[in-house]
Amino acid sequence: MSSIYQTLKEEAFEANMQIPKRGLAIYTWGNVSAFDKDKGVFAIKPSGVPYDTMTVEDIVVVDLELNKVEGKLNPSSDTPTHAELYKSFENIGGVTHTHSPYATSWAQACRGIPLLGTTHADHSANPVVCTPMIQKDAVERAYEKETGILIVNTFLHPEKVGAISFDGSPLKPLVPSENPMVLVAGHGPFTWGSNADKSVYNAAVLEEVAKMAWVTMTVNPQWKSLPDYVIDKHYQRKHGKNAYYGQGK
Amino acid sequence: MSSIYQTLKEEAFEANMQIPKRGLAIYTWGNVSAFDKDKGVFAIKPSGVPYDTMTVEDIVVVDLELNKVEGKLNPSSDTPTHAELYKSFENIGGVTHTHSPYATSWAQACRGIPLLGTTHADHSANPVVCTPMIQKDAVERAYEKETGILIVNTFLHPEKVGAISFDGSPLKPLVPSENPMVLVAGHGPFTWGSNADKSVYNAAVLEEVAKMAWVTMTVNPQWKSLPDYVIDKHYQRKHGKNAYYGQGK
Amino acid sequence: MSSIYQTLKEEAFEANMQIPKRGLAIYTWGNVSAFDKDKGVFAIKPSGVPYDTMTVEDIVVVDLELNKVEGKLNPSSDTPTHAELYKSFENIGGVTHTHSPYATSWAQACRGIPLLGTTHADHSANPVVCTPMIQKDAVERAYEKETGILIVNTFLHPEKVGAISFDGSPLKPLVPSENPMVLVAGHGPFTWGSNADKSVYNAAVLEEVAKMAWVTMTVNPQWKSLPDYVIDKHYQRKHGKNAYYGQGK
Amino acid sequence: MSSIYQTLKEEAFEANMQIPKRGLAIYTWGNVSAFDKDKGVFAIKPSGVPYDTMTVEDIVVVDLELNKVEGKLNPSSDTPTHAELYKSFENIGGVTHTHSPYATSWAQACRGIPLLGTTHADHSANPVVCTPMIQKDAVERAYEKETGILIVNTFLHPEKVGAISFDGSPLKPLVPSENPMVLVAGHGPFTWGSNADKSVYNAAVLEEVAKMAWVTMTVNPQWKSLPDYVIDKHYQRKHGKNAYYGQGK
Repeated sequence: MSSIYQTLKEEAFEANMQIPKRGLAIYTWGNVSAFDKDKGVFAIKPSGVPYDTMTVEDIVVVDLELNKVEGKLNPSSDTPTHAELYKSFENIGGVTHTHSPYATSWAQACRGIPLLGTTHADHSANPVVCTPMIQKDAVERAYEKETGILIVNTFLHPEKVGAISFDGSPLKPLVPSENPMVLVAGHGPFTWGSNADKSVYNAAVLEEVAKMAWVTMTVNPQWKSLPDYVIDKHYQRKHGKNAYYGQGK
Repeated sequence: MSSIYQTLKEEAFEANMQIPKRGLAIYTWGNVSAFDKDKGVFAIKPSGVPYDTMTVEDIVVVDLELNKVEGKLNPSSDTPTHAELYKSFENIGGVTHTHSPYATSWAQACRGIPLLGTTHADHSANPVVCTPMIQKDAVERAYEKETGILIVNTFLHPEKVGAISFDGSPLKPLVPSENPMVLVAGHGPFTWGSNADKSVYNAAVLEEVAKMAWVTMTVNPQWKSLPDYVIDKHYQRKHGKNAYYGQGK
Repeated sequence: MSSIYQTLKEEAFEANMQIPKRGLAIYTWGNVSAFDKDKGVFAIKPSGVPYDTMTVEDIVVVDLELNKVEGKLNPSSDTPTHAELYKSFENIGGVTHTHSPYATSWAQACRGIPLLGTTHADHSANPVVCTPMIQKDAVERAYEKETGILIVNTFLHPEKVGAISFDGSPLKPLVPSENPMVLVAGHGPFTWGSNADKSVYNAAVLEEVAKMAWVTMTVNPQWKSLPDYVIDKHYQRKHGKNAYYGQGK
Repeated sequence: MSSIYQTLKEEAFEANMQIPKRGLAIYTWGNVSAFDKDKGVFAIKPSGVPYDTMTVEDIVVVDLELNKVEGKLNPSSDTPTHAELYKSFENIGGVTHTHSPYATSWAQACRGIPLLGTTHADHSANPVVCTPMIQKDAVERAYEKETGILIVNTFLHPEKVGAISFDGSPLKPLVPSENPMVLVAGHGPFTWGSNADKSVYNAAVLEEVAKMAWVTMTVNPQWKSLPDYVIDKHYQRKHGKNAYYGQGK
């Protein structure tokens, strides 16, 4: 007899399998979750299970208070981080965490990624933000949950955590659904989207953007950000009211 | 009953499939078109369709005024850029646009690529040009068409748009069919050729040239351009009157 | 009739096959051994045999004095190095040596790798150590054995060989089983683990850590080490008494 | 009826197929030849033919004066370069030319590669040499033949062409069979070996060595060459009189 979470688990499974396919993590170093807002639950990768032996049945379903609703295995140790994002970010239905090498390198450098080209502007109209380093008391209190709270504050209350942009200026609040990626300082990338598949798509986008920004800045140390009018054009033609990229709805 | 554009669509389809095969773009981030000069039409990738589900029937045929001649889907959003190149560049039968990482990084750096070796000279006797940044009024007027016009002006009327070479000197006009590649500032590469297949070949060449130029310049910050007599030799032995590379005609 | 070393040889064989699968070495440039502490022997790759023609029967079994116990072929020329590690490092059951490009580049640079992020902290709570350059008399005496002794001294008696950390400070003794990787100056990486499979896993980890550290330090020349409280949290949640990563024991 | 050159052509064919397999060149940008010293002929890739459609029958056999001995197609345009090496270098039976990206980048940088680690020392006891830039009159006289002569002079009569080492010091003569690789300034790598297969092996070695030297020098701008006593040990244990690497003869 099929679970009422079957579709959600399959969505999470398929999205997790994109991680090795897209080269976004080796071994078990990444996880994707799929959120069902109506039921108040999300399906997520089990902890420490390799992609090539994982099955749909291994996917774990938890509610936003982290109670296990279905599944035999332990959910990803990053589950509390996912939960915080679902609780606070409107209109997101999937979250992805990886250790993809270029995005992780920027996170380790504790630097946001300037907006240098249209590849980036097609997916966000702002630089990629890097959170401040997590505080000692937060780590001791509840590390993974506090990582989620740090991401949420960086986006919604940047002044509260002293978040800064890539150029050192104070960060202004950002709409999460329009800026679907973040670097957690010293750790790595988290991305999200309207569903699990789009969240892992954004993880692949971020990795490509991170690689190209690194090369760009070594090719030309006097690099400049893309002009606002090009950023707006690219973001709007794909995501705005009159978007004309793709095959419509 | 077969379309009169069947061959053209197949040529465009096969060339588009080279993009993922050659690692020139992830997801849907690249498009190739094939031009039939006699019929005044070109066949191009549909917008936002992934390569692994695309079929020959999905290819869209448009005329140079962008009227759809055949196909159910929307053509690539970059279609007006392709059209401008076909209208103004003599002797080209295919155009490719990708976001391949190294070429895109140079475009984001707003830098042309100096001619450093014979790999480059085998395909063009000049540095790779980077266009000036597109102007705000052009973006507002007709972004994709104006991108094509910017490329055309950079090659045919460089003084009109203030185009400069990699070293900051004013650019001289270039023959498009002999210099089949350009970087659009802040965006990425466009390449062309006598047919669609050759345009995507040139996209792969440009990516390799861009990667090697980056490494070369970090290995030796006092790099020098290849001497003119070696450039001429390499370009002429492959493309000149007495070319002797390959198996002849 | 099956050898009493059959299981050990199979473990070594499977782990060696991970080297090409994970892209850790080309041709024959890497070797893994599996140690049976009770029997006092280890199984290791034969010297100079390519992975794609190697069979389980080619694996060579030797004791800690390097006497061949089973097998027709010559064992890896690095066998004496493996033996020294098994003799001196407690609780290790596998050793891997590769020439993976990023880890080898750090070894050639004669630099340890600072601890910059949680990817590293998940596997060791300390920077990766680079040994001092091996001395001339040691090379002349018994090169491969002395390479093992150099690694052992770097971990257990760092003051004896003048070992320093990545920042030039004198190195303190390290527990090998908790710090399963080293760079041999001018040569390349050696890694270990509780069994052969885990030692090659650590070789893949080290390669990824080495690549990301390189990119991190070029992205931000003012990089900083990860704070101790984040390092401890990550290492302990995976390897401490109350570890909660994975599916338990 | 089989050709008397069948074995030689097969050797050349198999070695050429290693070029795409090892990622040493895209499209047709590389060629390998196999030399039969007794017959005074060598078998080489046809010009401009892609690897995935090439057959053994396409391989062309020429003598050292470049007369075609067997085959319908034109031989590689680099054939005269191969011939010069066979005429002047003792004990070589195969030559490979590629445009592999890292080796080509060093060639474009006009820099030899210092000997930084044992990966390099396992294959040559000296830095990799970069030729001087070819002279204008040589290009006009007979470009490909003169490229071969330039390589030969760089090894056998370095003072005649003003060849220098990576550090700017005058180059001393080198034994070609013991130093099986060179960078041609502004062009790319040529490698050789006792047969065709070993020449393409050395092309893969050089690419790996070039990549690692680049990363090493950016990780530590104060890099140093490997001490002579380690170089000698590694080269001798693999290639010396008492070599003990591998399975003996």
